[in-house]
Amino acid sequence: MKKKAFDLLTLGEILLRLSPPDNERIVRGETFQKQVGGAELNVASGVSLLGLRSGIISRIPDSSIGMFAKNKIRFCGVSDDYLVYDTGKDARLGVYYYENGAYPRKPGVVYDRQHSSMTRIDIDEFDDSIYESTRCFHTSGITLALSEECRKTGVEMIKRFKEKGALISFDVNFRLNLWSGEEARKCIEGILPYVDIFFCSEDTARLTFGKEGNVKEIMESFAAEYPISVIASTQRTVLSPKIHNFTSVIYDAKAKKFYEEKPYENIEVVDRIGSGDAYCSGVLYGLLREDGGCASALRYGNASSAAKNTIPGDMPSLDREEIENIIHDHETVGYHSEMNR
Amino acid sequence: MKKKAFDLLTLGEILLRLSPPDNERIVRGETFQKQVGGAELNVASGVSLLGLRSGIISRIPDSSIGMFAKNKIRFCGVSDDYLVYDTGKDARLGVYYYENGAYPRKPGVVYDRQHSSMTRIDIDEFDDSIYESTRCFHTSGITLALSEECRKTGVEMIKRFKEKGALISFDVNFRLNLWSGEEARKCIEGILPYVDIFFCSEDTARLTFGKEGNVKEIMESFAAEYPISVIASTQRTVLSPKIHNFTSVIYDAKAKKFYEEKPYENIEVVDRIGSGDAYCSGVLYGLLREDGGCASALRYGNASSAAKNTIPGDMPSLDREEIENIIHDHETVGYHSEMNR
Amino acid sequence: MKKKAFDLLTLGEILLRLSPPDNERIVRGETFQKQVGGAELNVASGVSLLGLRSGIISRIPDSSIGMFAKNKIRFCGVSDDYLVYDTGKDARLGVYYYENGAYPRKPGVVYDRQHSSMTRIDIDEFDDSIYESTRCFHTSGITLALSEECRKTGVEMIKRFKEKGALISFDVNFRLNLWSGEEARKCIEGILPYVDIFFCSEDTARLTFGKEGNVKEIMESFAAEYPISVIASTQRTVLSPKIHNFTSVIYDAKAKKFYEEKPYENIEVVDRIGSGDAYCSGVLYGLLREDGGCASALRYGNASSAAKNTIPGDMPSLDREEIENIIHDHETVGYHSEMNR
Amino acid sequence: MKKKAFDLLTLGEILLRLSPPDNERIVRGETFQKQVGGAELNVASGVSLLGLRSGIISRIPDSSIGMFAKNKIRFCGVSDDYLVYDTGKDARLGVYYYENGAYPRKPGVVYDRQHSSMTRIDIDEFDDSIYESTRCFHTSGITLALSEECRKTGVEMIKRFKEKGALISFDVNFRLNLWSGEEARKCIEGILPYVDIFFCSEDTARLTFGKEGNVKEIMESFAAEYPISVIASTQRTVLSPKIHNFTSVIYDAKAKKFYEEKPYENIEVVDRIGSGDAYCSGVLYGLLREDGGCASALRYGNASSAAKNTIPGDMPSLDREEIENIIHDHETVGYHSEMNR
Amino acid sequence: MKKKAFDLLTLGEILLRLSPPDNERIVRGETFQKQVGGAELNVASGVSLLGLRSGIISRIPDSSIGMFAKNKIRFCGVSDDYLVYDTGKDARLGVYYYENGAYPRKPGVVYDRQHSSMTRIDIDEFDDSIYESTRCFHTSGITLALSEECRKTGVEMIKRFKEKGALISFDVNFRLNLWSGEEARKCIEGILPYVDIFFCSEDTARLTFGKEGNVKEIMESFAAEYPISVIASTQRTVLSPKIHNFTSVIYDAKAKKFYEEKPYENIEVVDRIGSGDAYCSGVLYGLLREDGGCASALRYGNASSAAKNTIPGDMPSLDREEIENIIHDHETVGYHSEMNR
Amino acid sequence: MKKKAFDLLTLGEILLRLSPPDNERIVRGETFQKQVGGAELNVASGVSLLGLRSGIISRIPDSSIGMFAKNKIRFCGVSDDYLVYDTGKDARLGVYYYENGAYPRKPGVVYDRQHSSMTRIDIDEFDDSIYESTRCFHTSGITLALSEECRKTGVEMIKRFKEKGALISFDVNFRLNLWSGEEARKCIEGILPYVDIFFCSEDTARLTFGKEGNVKEIMESFAAEYPISVIASTQRTVLSPKIHNFTSVIYDAKAKKFYEEKPYENIEVVDRIGSGDAYCSGVLYGLLREDGGCASALRYGNASSAAKNTIPGDMPSLDREEIENIIHDHETVGYHSEMNR
Repeated sequence: MKKKAFDLLTLGEILLRLSPPDNERIVRGETFQKQVGGAELNVASGVSLLGLRSGIISRIPDSSIGMFAKNKIRFCGVSDDYLVYDTGKDARLGVYYYENGAYPRKPGVVYDRQHSSMTRIDIDEFDDSIYESTRCFHTSGITLALSEECRKTGVEMIKRFKEKGALISFDVNFRLNLWSGEEARKCIEGILPYVDIFFCSEDTARLTFGKEGNVKEIMESFAAEYPISVIASTQRTVLSPKIHNFTSVIYDAKAKKFYEEKPYENIEVVDRIGSGDAYCSGVLYGLLREDGGCASALRYGNASSAAKNTIPGDMPSLDREEIENIIHDHETVGYHSEMNR
Repeated sequence: MKKKAFDLLTLGEILLRLSPPDNERIVRGETFQKQVGGAELNVASGVSLLGLRSGIISRIPDSSIGMFAKNKIRFCGVSDDYLVYDTGKDARLGVYYYENGAYPRKPGVVYDRQHSSMTRIDIDEFDDSIYESTRCFHTSGITLALSEECRKTGVEMIKRFKEKGALISFDVNFRLNLWSGEEARKCIEGILPYVDIFFCSEDTARLTFGKEGNVKEIMESFAAEYPISVIASTQRTVLSPKIHNFTSVIYDAKAKKFYEEKPYENIEVVDRIGSGDAYCSGVLYGLLREDGGCASALRYGNASSAAKNTIPGDMPSLDREEIENIIHDHETVGYHSEMNR
Repeated sequence: MKKKAFDLLTLGEILLRLSPPDNERIVRGETFQKQVGGAELNVASGVSLLGLRSGIISRIPDSSIGMFAKNKIRFCGVSDDYLVYDTGKDARLGVYYYENGAYPRKPGVVYDRQHSSMTRIDIDEFDDSIYESTRCFHTSGITLALSEECRKTGVEMIKRFKEKGALISFDVNFRLNLWSGEEARKCIEGILPYVDIFFCSEDTARLTFGKEGNVKEIMESFAAEYPISVIASTQRTVLSPKIHNFTSVIYDAKAKKFYEEKPYENIEVVDRIGSGDAYCSGVLYGLLREDGGCASALRYGNASSAAKNTIPGDMPSLDREEIENIIHDHETVGYHSEMNR
Repeated sequence: MKKKAFDLLTLGEILLRLSPPDNERIVRGETFQKQVGGAELNVASGVSLLGLRSGIISRIPDSSIGMFAKNKIRFCGVSDDYLVYDTGKDARLGVYYYENGAYPRKPGVVYDRQHSSMTRIDIDEFDDSIYESTRCFHTSGITLALSEECRKTGVEMIKRFKEKGALISFDVNFRLNLWSGEEARKCIEGILPYVDIFFCSEDTARLTFGKEGNVKEIMESFAAEYPISVIASTQRTVLSPKIHNFTSVIYDAKAKKFYEEKPYENIEVVDRIGSGDAYCSGVLYGLLREDGGCASALRYGNASSAAKNTIPGDMPSLDREEIENIIHDHETVGYHSEMNR
Repeated sequence: MKKKAFDLLTLGEILLRLSPPDNERIVRGETFQKQVGGAELNVASGVSLLGLRSGIISRIPDSSIGMFAKNKIRFCGVSDDYLVYDTGKDARLGVYYYENGAYPRKPGVVYDRQHSSMTRIDIDEFDDSIYESTRCFHTSGITLALSEECRKTGVEMIKRFKEKGALISFDVNFRLNLWSGEEARKCIEGILPYVDIFFCSEDTARLTFGKEGNVKEIMESFAAEYPISVIASTQRTVLSPKIHNFTSVIYDAKAKKFYEEKPYENIEVVDRIGSGDAYCSGVLYGLLREDGGCASALRYGNASSAAKNTIPGDMPSLDREEIENIIHDHETVGYHSEMNR
Repeated sequence: MKKKAFDLLTLGEILLRLSPPDNERIVRGETFQKQVGGAELNVASGVSLLGLRSGIISRIPDSSIGMFAKNKIRFCGVSDDYLVYDTGKDARLGVYYYENGAYPRKPGVVYDRQHSSMTRIDIDEFDDSIYESTRCFHTSGITLALSEECRKTGVEMIKRFKEKGALISFDVNFRLNLWSGEEARKCIEGILPYVDIFFCSEDTARLTFGKEGNVKEIMESFAAEYPISVIASTQRTVLSPKIHNFTSVIYDAKAKKFYEEKPYENIEVVDRIGSGDAYCSGVLYGLLREDGGCASALRYGNASSAAKNTIPGDMPSLDREEIENIIHDHETVGYHSEMNR
């Protein structure tokens, strides 16, 4: 069988992120850090850094600010082959403003993403060959919530990629400012029959899907209802805006086996945005790599997420060797070198 | 008669301006200068710097980014008494991206101002006392072009301010990306019967209003048709993105007298945005100050505009003493001090 | 009775603050952060952010650097109505240099505030209408210590504001580099008969006023001697330059009741300067707001101070909604959102 | 015939460029701008911006600083498919330090490129499929001068690409600090029989190749000796470090026809480095585009070079639409818009 | 005869210079460039860069900001052997705020130098050995104008250095904001009998010393009255804040010979402050170097001054080789390399 | 006996250090902090800050980047008298790239120091007078490992300085990327007979010198074999990249006495590089100061090292008064001022 061009394609909105430097606030100051992010882009970037081939499916304006986004996407190792350019008069790149927190002040975010070029995406803008070009397709609840057109495109792409043999990965990533829990539940239940790899937080499982019991019982319940292969759920403890703990649970639904490990403790958080996406990227890498599986998904997922917190911006920037060193230190006791020389 | 609280109130949109530093481009780089601008805000700010009391009538989001705009408005000496805060879920501050040019590369601008909070302004959000609080009201064609609601509010405010005895100042400021020439002409002809001070470039007069003849004939033609007191028209020569010449012609329609002076030559342009608005502010100051008139309008208008080009950002920052020193140097020959000590 | 124009006026020096960025030192580096501060300005700014109308009474040079100070004062929501401009040849804005610490290196400060324009303030520069324009007047021992003229003006203003019905608030804020304990005691004892709200640290009470016993006994002793209504005392524990604990005790002398709450622990300190002033602003807000009183003074005071530590510069920047969210999180257990969205 | 994957592949060293900001000097200051450049990379980047597919053949260290170079290459639209990573202990990326000038101070450059990973390139590190993958291959005298291995690889690649049907483009780019004129002449004469497109400055032609006569006679002389199709020679006048004039002459050796146009005058130079490479990219684009030829080579070459001078860093950043607007303004008289809106 | 430790010692105040970056203004912005300057320090630094041994005699506070000044003095090659540290409570480093101009806006400066540690300098703080340690001593009218103590110390040092055989160099550097013309004249006439090298602008000669005639006649008149060996006068033409012309006239009073050369034209001014001091440094170097004299004084003086304008900050930063290249280019026609490689 | 010109001379390489700001990574970002470091320079700088006279013996390129290094050396109080300038075509300053870490991401360093000018140092470039000019000579294993020439020069200088009566200080500072343990052991055993003050970590003692037992037994073993007077060994615990503990053990071999103190705990690490060198500087200061000895060596060593961690860059910046305040706070309980005022 022919080798596919990509290991992973993701579908999602690309946002301009504007952040005051350091501990400065949005209401003050004279500069913004100019970055690019978006849940599914972050996932694609993390997978690329770990050594697989990834690309992003999205719709951006055909303007300087759109070209900036494209350049950054390439910079972070993600293919721009499936970007569609919006030449309309109302083309715009969604924006979000983000500021760091410090206890007792929380981080803050202001979204300005309505009416973006992405919200008017149309599945007919993409050639059918796309569905055969990847081993895995990933998107999230954010994409489904952005607009009617996004939802239609997202759901239809899931079906077409599935049909062409791609694994389907889906992260619920519930955002109350985008849709209601009821809308989310209804929409996502419609796609769960197609999903192979499912990311869902414990809170969302309870509040949105009405699940009960502990996290393992919740996972078993999803697996009982839908033909999902792998279910992953992060476990983050926010000690302060600058100190977190992190681990996760992964359920191998075929083998009915749970994977867990001790948390990364006292993570020195530089920028927490995108650490959930970095988790997805680590898990997907762990599953998609040669000889991959839930055990490596857990290790790469946890390490990628913990490490992302130490990086400014949405996107991860640690490569496979660095992640593997972190995993090694996490799993061993005794002498650890203090520096990467 | 009771002294009015303000010398000038302006109505207009407040925009977040994002610019790469120096000669960097929007498509690259990692920071944006974070500034606030907008044609009518720039006018109000210039008038305040020259020593009169001014305020801005506008509608901004009730979010961190809206508060940033409010803080900056206060910073530049403009009253925030008539800002209305949009608490809606779709509240947004319009954004524009601006980059400097250098010959042969032109400056560039990308607008992202659709659907802003301003576009949903409603005259009923303002108390009737506003109409008695100022000696002069100013707005521009940009405001009228932003949305149906803006046009309705703008036109109605012109009428109400006029009724309460305020001078009405209007700058055509034609922008093809906001409306067609035909739309502009039709709308503006409807308000010209109320306008006392009229700013219109020669090009726009020809292309939009179908005027013919030289600039003076054009001015006389406007004065013949409408009860305008003062008509002002800038004369800018762009030698390169970094070198301009500037002067203007002002017509005192009552006295049928033209005012002109030799241009400022080889202006060292740092940031050209807002120099037209600075011109309006200088002219309005020249007319509204004690013992003001067209002669001082010309001098303050030209000097304010020339000097604005040397300041980064939309808004002017020279105070009256500095502007008067510039006027003095422009009008005299012989020894000029090299530095303000 | 006529509504007063301001809820709070404060009297104090405005300083230019120059700080190397991040962890850089004054002895090295090539840039200074350019900020404005001063104990009483910080208080006025905090009260304004919480939603009341405040202004600063001060004297600054009529130069570019003075105008910078004025612009910043407006930026932070404080009225510039009662600024007096010094046009003398020796006009100057006091300066202080501040650098952050990191254990075991302490923060450091170098003052250069002698001979400033403020030190030559004269009560006759202010119109008598000022004394009727505010519900509360606040100043601190720093103002009284700056110069003979400051002391005279400060003491006299306290009396005049008191006479016109304003509440008098006073923060001892003892600084050994400005005056001796003996001088301070003598001067402050002269004004305590006029003071309604009194801020005094436990250390100063002991060392300067010779008080004995625990903090509550000290407060009772002040209340026994003077007709003070509210006495407040902060309790800060410096775990390291970057980690503090904070709480306070407030004594309602009329009701003979103490107010206390558990400390904010492990505050992630970004910039500790001004956190004492932010405390005053929170307390004053708590007392001056509708239905205010010592209970809300304690909560707003502690939260404002704790939160100020997370903000670069002297002045606070959290608004009422943010402070109330912090209070809510501090007082409740269970799920707290991780971010302000 | 099968479409080739690339329109252009270039062979050359990639350097880390370190520059103090603005007018700061290397001997002072605390920051360097961190950029990536190299003559052949600049050419590939320019061609990519104009809309063709390009890639760079090079050898870089397998370290963080090497990865930075790779990311930047991708950012600027150039393929990283043919980068070889040096994992040796002595792997290094060449560095050069560059500072701007201002009359009468010249720009300055300090090279630290000896012993770089590129100098140990080996043709056997590249798969033979590379030679069939491009329509055109470009390199320069710099590459041939870097090391024995570079020279061997460069010369052999020219031959292999030629054999597989690629056009061969060569820029003499003589650098006295890399080799002597005699060495250069001897080596380059060995490859001229393979070259289709030849870039050589008038000075170098005279000093290194001993040509005589005016620039046109020189071009004819090269064409008489070697089977070159197109010869291009830039004509730059340095009025000051910040003001240049630029044009060029192109000779179509088959048609024996010269192409010239009036110079771009008073170019506002921001960063002159790479403007010669931008010229090559414009010329190659003009020849390789559909319906291309020497006329469009001249126009794109001159405009690309003139415009590059206005961009900080080695690499161009104007896209085809922007370049075509510049060409249009250069070729027409009358009204030109002042800004790209 | 024993070789002296220094070629040049200068006496003068060291100031902290605070400048907004680029074209930003003092009234706005959030950072200051943190630099150190002062007329006589600038002279010492220039002479050191050109290859002679120089030191500064001054008095600075024994605080972090004083240590910053000391570090910078060493950085620029000047000896800190004769710095006296003020440990008093009122120790301060004078400050000045400087902003760049752009036509028609002039550069601006705000001084805050009163009461500095320097103003309380006392000649008894210096060991007598100092007077034998240098070949030349230089100071300026600024030092004499700063305070009574400065004047006393300056005049007395001139006498003592003279007595020990040092050449005395004096730059009038008249500043109206420090003293009146009458005061200046009277004081300077008292020291002219000791002066060997005299710098005086044409304007000052006329206005302050009542000289008449052209610049040469003025020089002759000084030489007739006083035993001065060399008189130098700069000739600057300010075309705009960013474009100057510069040359000078030097008079060899012993040989009764004038030295002149064609001006440096269209100097690209980055920072004009200190260019007069750089002129002094070039002249002094030209006189003090081996085989020096008025001819080389003229060339090094003009080139040093012209080149200083291209450097941010007060102090020059070009070394002898660079200055000599500039001289060479200025004196020759034909091919000049475009860059220092 | 004649007073020597220096208290300490060190021999070592000077490197350009390039670091992304804050938590940014080498693989991304657009600026590098431009600093200078090197183990022996750091030691000399620390000793100078503490109040002794120190200088560095090294070899740097005669280029702008070499001059930058020289200027910085002077800035930090170290004499440049013994710098030798490499005018060769292959002159280069070694470079290293350093990025900060945050748990779980470690700091990282990339070296590019091969072929530097230092590696070709020749003892004949130094005048014999150097050996009589200092009370103490210090170098480290890094210098011995850099090249054959460095090793020869280092070993020979140790002998010559010893002969002229200087104390010899040596820090093993073992770096596996420079030489093997076996090479190191062999070389260092050759110089130990000359060493008076010996710095060796416990790990290196075991792994490289095959020592056994606890740290004290190891020290006794060295003292038994060689005529060393003082042996010092740091004890660092890396809790995370941003939190360390630090103390040390010093052995007075003559008195057979160990010196220890409680660790500095929870050091807030800003930049860990150079903290080992700062330790050496504190120890050497403690030994070389008047009335010095192992007790003060321990206190100054530990405090200097702990404090260095809070300073960006390689070199320390705390002066003696600051270090003594830290020592005082470390050794006392009870009230400590929160800030240095």
